[in-house]
Amino acid sequence: MSAAYESMWKDLGLDLAAHDVLLQVLGNAYRDIFLSQKDRPGGMDYFNFVMSEVHGLRIKELLESKKKGKKVIGSFCVFVPEEIVRAADATLVGLCTGADFATDEVDKILPRNTCSLIKSAFGFKLGKVCPYIESADMIVGENTCDGKKKSYEVLNTLVPHLYVMDLPQTKSAEGRAVLKSEYYRFKEAVEGLCGVRIDAAMLKKGIDIVNAKRKAIHRLSKLRKADPAPISGLDALLINQVYFYDDPARFTESVNKICDELEQRIKEKKGVFPQGTPRILLSGCPMAVPNWKLPWIIETSGAVIVGEESCVGERGTRNLTDNSGQTVEELMDAIVERHFQIDCAIFTPNPDRLNHVKEMYREYNANGVIHYGLQFCQPYQIESYSVEKALEGEHIPTLRVDTDYSMEDVEQLKTRVEAFIERLK
Amino acid sequence: MSAAYESMWKDLGLDLAAHDVLLQVLGNAYRDIFLSQKDRPGGMDYFNFVMSEVHGLRIKELLESKKKGKKVIGSFCVFVPEEIVRAADATLVGLCTGADFATDEVDKILPRNTCSLIKSAFGFKLGKVCPYIESADMIVGENTCDGKKKSYEVLNTLVPHLYVMDLPQTKSAEGRAVLKSEYYRFKEAVEGLCGVRIDAAMLKKGIDIVNAKRKAIHRLSKLRKADPAPISGLDALLINQVYFYDDPARFTESVNKICDELEQRIKEKKGVFPQGTPRILLSGCPMAVPNWKLPWIIETSGAVIVGEESCVGERGTRNLTDNSGQTVEELMDAIVERHFQIDCAIFTPNPDRLNHVKEMYREYNANGVIHYGLQFCQPYQIESYSVEKALEGEHIPTLRVDTDYSMEDVEQLKTRVEAFIERLK
Repeated sequence: MSAAYESMWKDLGLDLAAHDVLLQVLGNAYRDIFLSQKDRPGGMDYFNFVMSEVHGLRIKELLESKKKGKKVIGSFCVFVPEEIVRAADATLVGLCTGADFATDEVDKILPRNTCSLIKSAFGFKLGKVCPYIESADMIVGENTCDGKKKSYEVLNTLVPHLYVMDLPQTKSAEGRAVLKSEYYRFKEAVEGLCGVRIDAAMLKKGIDIVNAKRKAIHRLSKLRKADPAPISGLDALLINQVYFYDDPARFTESVNKICDELEQRIKEKKGVFPQGTPRILLSGCPMAVPNWKLPWIIETSGAVIVGEESCVGERGTRNLTDNSGQTVEELMDAIVERHFQIDCAIFTPNPDRLNHVKEMYREYNANGVIHYGLQFCQPYQIESYSVEKALEGEHIPTLRVDTDYSMEDVEQLKTRVEAFIERLK
Repeated sequence: MSAAYESMWKDLGLDLAAHDVLLQVLGNAYRDIFLSQKDRPGGMDYFNFVMSEVHGLRIKELLESKKKGKKVIGSFCVFVPEEIVRAADATLVGLCTGADFATDEVDKILPRNTCSLIKSAFGFKLGKVCPYIESADMIVGENTCDGKKKSYEVLNTLVPHLYVMDLPQTKSAEGRAVLKSEYYRFKEAVEGLCGVRIDAAMLKKGIDIVNAKRKAIHRLSKLRKADPAPISGLDALLINQVYFYDDPARFTESVNKICDELEQRIKEKKGVFPQGTPRILLSGCPMAVPNWKLPWIIETSGAVIVGEESCVGERGTRNLTDNSGQTVEELMDAIVERHFQIDCAIFTPNPDRLNHVKEMYREYNANGVIHYGLQFCQPYQIESYSVEKALEGEHIPTLRVDTDYSMEDVEQLKTRVEAFIERLK
């Protein structure tokens, strides 16, 4: 990315000097962590290109689509139903987070004991380095954890078009009613923004677009069961991260293309790590670009990651939305049903997640689970005790790691991760 | 409290040695902080007695009432509707928290970045030093903040009879529906526990008992508008704390008695601090016995506290429940309506709280507001930025203090509080 986009970024109100620094750091990290990997599938070239143009070409596309009247909606959470956004022919994009930025500014308006993910989202806004948030016609917050719920009140003073979606805390009939009511309210808001009335055909089209993305990810996930692993956990995570930014049809095609290649690799027993490499299931908090610290530590410590029980991973993509309904009501019910199954730690109790972690451990032939808790993320950190207890109760080796976006604890984490991987051999 | 209760505590399963240490620390703190105050109202003798017997006589009373078939329900939150408990002729008591205890044990099952209030509740249970939780026939948790919501899943493995109440996050129609449905579910649970069917007359009786307590507190609060202040903030806080433990009728009578005395004091222009002493409104997180650190610092630094915008204070007691309904449905609606007005920071947005803080500041003729945030309490800590901004916008001097239950920061806090009080002179 370069001078070619300067005027575009300037028009969006970005701080060009700060943004240059960000791109440089991001580029270096990508080179050191991703490009240095051995035997990567050729299909990763596409994702390398996407990443190199994530603030460039992709933003240009969004701005061009906006000129044609297409709206851009930004979000921070998998509870925001992309089906409804796509039904209105609008674009849903994940907003920037994943790296510390403008921390001095952030510390003035948020408590220090706020998780890195939230602080980072604020840092990208305050530091004027996120072209996605500046391109968005609507930003959708959601009442998931306390940190996000309450910080959206503060974000509302920083952006002109924040929409906040309420969410339930239990999987009760009343909880489902809250979700349903909120999804109808969201549909109306999207209709208002886009100047359309969403009918059943549009909703079905929206569902099909998003289901296609999910199916491609399911295909990719299944291929990771093979030993040797045909793709690294870092690359698979990257694909799951790009899921939130890319054009859905192009993304689906690119994932399917890499899957063709991986199938061939599996036939040839070709992998990115030797057969018998300890296999890790990663479970816990989401990892947004460029939060690659822990996977990078794991995969440079003698193990391979074979699955992500995470919002940026299987928690976010595992279920399809039933598209068989004939009416708006039936299709909306299907969207509610699909999202109500997400086993986020904001729900209490949340036994489905424990079962899903165990299920993934077995399905992906993992040898151990590393639970990633983002410091100050109370829902996942508290739940990690139950996860560890349940897994160790079934003799599944488990390591709980609580960390943030800083690089200060890398050596310490590496020591712990290496010791854990030794246990698995 | 002494050897007279030893067998009772032993029967409850308390750790007698640890409990002795606790009582000694509590007694010393009470002596140093409360009994050392000058010109206390004579009516405080009753509350001194209650405090000296808080683990003794009061527990004996509860156990005796249990022998007669009366049930004891323990809770941690003002959203648990006492009216329904009293309607079933059961007793609602606040459960122990407010001091660090058994922290090593707590750290094994809860993240370090959990607030002191939650850690303390677990510490009292794990350390076997809370006779209330051991006497309770039912413990009621509630989905307020993430910390409590998720830690109740852990508490559920430590106590045999935990009941968890869901709560809404917004003041929407759907939010009210959640609260209503949960209060009906709670009524059924209480009916089941007590073996009664609550009718309108019983519900009205429950409402009247609790309203009487609240009215007595309202009377006390109004008297604190006087200058000189007829009662210290520490003593008023203590009364608000005893609200959660004492027999309601006896409590109401004792508060009204002290109010008679305070009225006399006001006539005589007699106070606990000289006229013109800087007046502080305390706002923020609840303070349970023996969490007296910040009020003690404030009132030994040249200021008097004239109001508590807190769950243990006016947020918890300000509104009465309408008792005019004739049917169970009407009275239940009144209970829902009353509690739905509580402006806890778990709600988003929460503008009522900002208005209430400003209103209290004016009504109690305060000179400044000190916001008390419990470290790692994300809802109140994040909201404290909006509170400060709103208050400073109206030129109301505001100090934000974030702390925990440890005594390590006392000197540092004292310096900050003294500097703030200087600003008010």
